Amino acid sequence: MKTLRVNMDRLEVKWESVLPEYERLGGRALIAKILLTEIPPQCEPLGPDNKLIFAPGLLAGLPSLTSAGRLSVGGKSPLTQGIKEANAGGMAGDKLGHLGLKAIVVEGQPTEGGLYLLHVTAQGASLLPADQLSGLGNYETVARLQERFGQDVAIVSIGPAGEMGLAGAGVAVTDDLTKQPGRQAARGGLGAVMGSKRLKALVIDDADAPPLPLSDESLFRRSAKRFARELIESPKTGKEGSMHRFGTVAVMGPVNEIGALPTRNFSAGQFEGFENICATRMREVTLARGGQIGVRCMAGCVIRCCNVFVDEQGETIVSTLQYETLGLLGSNLGIDSLDDIARLNRVCNDLGVDSIEMGASLGLAMEADLAQFGDAKSAMALLEQVKEGTVLGRVLGNGAAVTGRVLGLERIPVARGQAFPAYDPRALKGNGVTYATSAMGADHTAGNTIGARKTIDPLGCEGQAELSRGLQRVAAMLDMTGLCLFARPPVVADPQLMVDLINGRYGWGWTVKSLEQAEDDVLRTEREFNRRAGFTEAHDRLPEAFSREPLPPHNTVFDVPDAELDSVFSAL
Amino acid sequence: MKTLRVNMDRLEVKWESVLPEYERLGGRALIAKILLTEIPPQCEPLGPDNKLIFAPGLLAGLPSLTSAGRLSVGGKSPLTQGIKEANAGGMAGDKLGHLGLKAIVVEGQPTEGGLYLLHVTAQGASLLPADQLSGLGNYETVARLQERFGQDVAIVSIGPAGEMGLAGAGVAVTDDLTKQPGRQAARGGLGAVMGSKRLKALVIDDADAPPLPLSDESLFRRSAKRFARELIESPKTGKEGSMHRFGTVAVMGPVNEIGALPTRNFSAGQFEGFENICATRMREVTLARGGQIGVRCMAGCVIRCCNVFVDEQGETIVSTLQYETLGLLGSNLGIDSLDDIARLNRVCNDLGVDSIEMGASLGLAMEADLAQFGDAKSAMALLEQVKEGTVLGRVLGNGAAVTGRVLGLERIPVARGQAFPAYDPRALKGNGVTYATSAMGADHTAGNTIGARKTIDPLGCEGQAELSRGLQRVAAMLDMTGLCLFARPPVVADPQLMVDLINGRYGWGWTVKSLEQAEDDVLRTEREFNRRAGFTEAHDRLPEAFSREPLPPHNTVFDVPDAELDSVFSAL
Repeated sequence: MKTLRVNMDRLEVKWESVLPEYERLGGRALIAKILLTEIPPQCEPLGPDNKLIFAPGLLAGLPSLTSAGRLSVGGKSPLTQGIKEANAGGMAGDKLGHLGLKAIVVEGQPTEGGLYLLHVTAQGASLLPADQLSGLGNYETVARLQERFGQDVAIVSIGPAGEMGLAGAGVAVTDDLTKQPGRQAARGGLGAVMGSKRLKALVIDDADAPPLPLSDESLFRRSAKRFARELIESPKTGKEGSMHRFGTVAVMGPVNEIGALPTRNFSAGQFEGFENICATRMREVTLARGGQIGVRCMAGCVIRCCNVFVDEQGETIVSTLQYETLGLLGSNLGIDSLDDIARLNRVCNDLGVDSIEMGASLGLAMEADLAQFGDAKSAMALLEQVKEGTVLGRVLGNGAAVTGRVLGLERIPVARGQAFPAYDPRALKGNGVTYATSAMGADHTAGNTIGARKTIDPLGCEGQAELSRGLQRVAAMLDMTGLCLFARPPVVADPQLMVDLINGRYGWGWTVKSLEQAEDDVLRTEREFNRRAGFTEAHDRLPEAFSREPLPPHNTVFDVPDAELDSVFSAL
Repeated sequence: MKTLRVNMDRLEVKWESVLPEYERLGGRALIAKILLTEIPPQCEPLGPDNKLIFAPGLLAGLPSLTSAGRLSVGGKSPLTQGIKEANAGGMAGDKLGHLGLKAIVVEGQPTEGGLYLLHVTAQGASLLPADQLSGLGNYETVARLQERFGQDVAIVSIGPAGEMGLAGAGVAVTDDLTKQPGRQAARGGLGAVMGSKRLKALVIDDADAPPLPLSDESLFRRSAKRFARELIESPKTGKEGSMHRFGTVAVMGPVNEIGALPTRNFSAGQFEGFENICATRMREVTLARGGQIGVRCMAGCVIRCCNVFVDEQGETIVSTLQYETLGLLGSNLGIDSLDDIARLNRVCNDLGVDSIEMGASLGLAMEADLAQFGDAKSAMALLEQVKEGTVLGRVLGNGAAVTGRVLGLERIPVARGQAFPAYDPRALKGNGVTYATSAMGADHTAGNTIGARKTIDPLGCEGQAELSRGLQRVAAMLDMTGLCLFARPPVVADPQLMVDLINGRYGWGWTVKSLEQAEDDVLRTEREFNRRAGFTEAHDRLPEAFSREPLPPHNTVFDVPDAELDSVFSAL
């Protein structure tokens, strides 16, 4: 396997054999290690010393394995000022894996202007001028690149928000079905890091790459088959399961029921318009209009949780419409029209901003009367400001923490400078623990406790730290291997299955203990990076307002004791 | 002596005897101790758990002692998120001292709306409604309060910026000559903390207060007399001295000469318009127009460094026009008209924003083409936005760090989130050490090395850490006793003189060693507060751009090694 080093100072690409210390790492684990080893943790995220890393997981690029092609993107975050890994489904992870690429590491910054794209094939890689794409949205960018390079390439790109250096900018990835840039490694402003490197897009073509070698083909194929079978036969991920039938939106019912659905800038936890945007409604509307439900983002995925949301004329608005977006751009803005939310989502995707971060910013703007709760037009007008790069637009695009500070608000839903996803931590306290303690800031994918609501009271403090710690480990395992969160049940139920997949592929002779060790290493490495960057336990806290202001309808506050929060990592 | 506790939750005032652990502390030292003891260091600066403290120095309120009436204001800073003490001359410090007040500690926040003023006399204190002052500038606020309470009271107030909660808001103090709110405890956003407590003003009336007791009257009077004589006879602070003849502006020549004068958003260190705004020019213009030079801000001051700057008709524009303002609102904006700078200064004073912070914000706005360097009208238009509370105005008013981040700039002149005063750290590296390491962020008053430029090369790294450490100690001594920086030479030359003054007043039997111990305690207590608030050595650094981008004309960068920076406190 190889690493591709892209030097933006000299506009050179260089193939490197993988350093021994990076060899057994993939995805998020590799990103953590490279960042801790190679960049000054105190560097400015948009300065020349930061690096932007694209790393598929350890199990990417194998057509016989389902749901393992997520692409990890990483760097020091301009939003949190800490370490960041964000990942996305779509085509890119598997294609990079298939090319035998451990990582693409983008370094430096061009001293002159200009915008570039990186073309990667089995024959080599080259930086090409991309000035003609300057300022284009992700959809048009992708359309032009597909015209030039064909439909079968994976495209990773940024929109105007990334070019503008907005800290809410994400990195878009095309999906396998619609070939549109609807998947986003959205969180933490990595799109701005890409923009600071003057890199508009990656075009990844694995057409001529040979199949990847397998160390123990029989073990690998047996394990991959069992993995797929268990997913297909599961009542959750199988054909009749909620994940296939509803996708991520399936979770909205439970979240609303426990009173944790962000509503009007996190001022309430149940939304009166819930019925209009819930999972069953989205499915009904989509199918009635000729949209699609149960489509894949990665080739060969057996779960197929995605949807293609269309308008009344059957024209695609966005694919895929997801729970976090419905929460942040929907209930959090008091908007209960799926069409309106889908249109806001498309504009966010096109601009290349995180729909979670932007939804939180817009909620704050509404709280400050710059737009009206429930009024999608006024929300759209604010997105227009972001597009135009006005001062207000730049405030919003720089995320919820900056927006809340500029507007002088108190209830600012952020941890470590990053907006809360669609679970209010006062009613789902385990997620509050994750937001507060994860090196990533408020990421639901870093350790989402909603699935444990029936065994551990989401409104209580008891057991939340341990719950979060365990789920943070699981997240690390998934993010280092490239597995989708939805595909976790078989490997969580039997970690030996994950070990067999890794050993089948690489022959490392891992045990379950090695795997657990690897998980803990990821979490510790990230935390060590943040420690060197200047973070302490004082930052492992949520904003005061969430401990003070009770959340209707249960009127609870976030009251997990500091000592409990501190125990998450001290007991690791 | 007593402490006045003002509870804004219950709108109650309470007199308290001074706690034993606070007894030997004054001004900045007392503030540091109270904040570390009484507030959660991680609290939100504009939330109910922060406290706002007004504390005169140990030697305030004694008519026989000159230049010792500076008022310290303190709290957790909304600008730096760390501990903050800012002090100002004017009438308030001496009057509080004369009233036997160790400190006024303002706690909590009203749950309902409403604005209040605190009236303090020798008979007692009361909170009075002040809704009629809502939104008024400092000048009109003071005029109305003088109409009601007379000209002899001291007034401490905030303008609209403080009411709006802008992190660049300061606290204004009336001076002894013009009785105008031209003195500001400007730095760190304490005006916003005052606004968050809904406290518009303090009115301090010491008319009926008896003289303060002296423990050893003869020692005190002898020492005070010697202190005054040395100041009067000094070639620097005496009648023919530059401090009396030019005030703080005297320093502009040396700063421009060494190439450290902020010019056009810190892009150069010498200003081509220097001759038009320098000390001699200001003196000439002021005297020719019938303005005043050599006036006092505190009663009985023998140095009298202030000026009353007037327009061509002889009408007062502002008093006093100071060096930092000329640097930040002048050369830093490319503006070389004293009239223009004085008018911008007056608007800042009236709004109640720090002219340093605002000058840095405006410089960044000019860099981003929201106004033009050299064009005072466009700068004034931006101040108008602050006044109106537009989004752009709120960005600017929240300070340089937020402004630079929102506008996507690289060269953002801040340390710990607070704007650099008028000494570029690349050409006066000792000040860079102070900016980086002081718990206060970039305060020139925390340890200004300009006076040492002839003994220690300001462009070199050698000796800067030690120099800064020594000056930070001196600053602590001055700020705990209420002495003006300009009055330091006699007590720096002979610390026993300071010890005699303290022993004459209190009879504590201090030695020079006790005094040095007290200085170090201040610095350590402040640093400990910040440590608990989440600061580490990673924060003791200047922004990358200042280490990367050479400063004309000497083309040096800030390159004091990290280990040197860390030695400032490790060797304390």
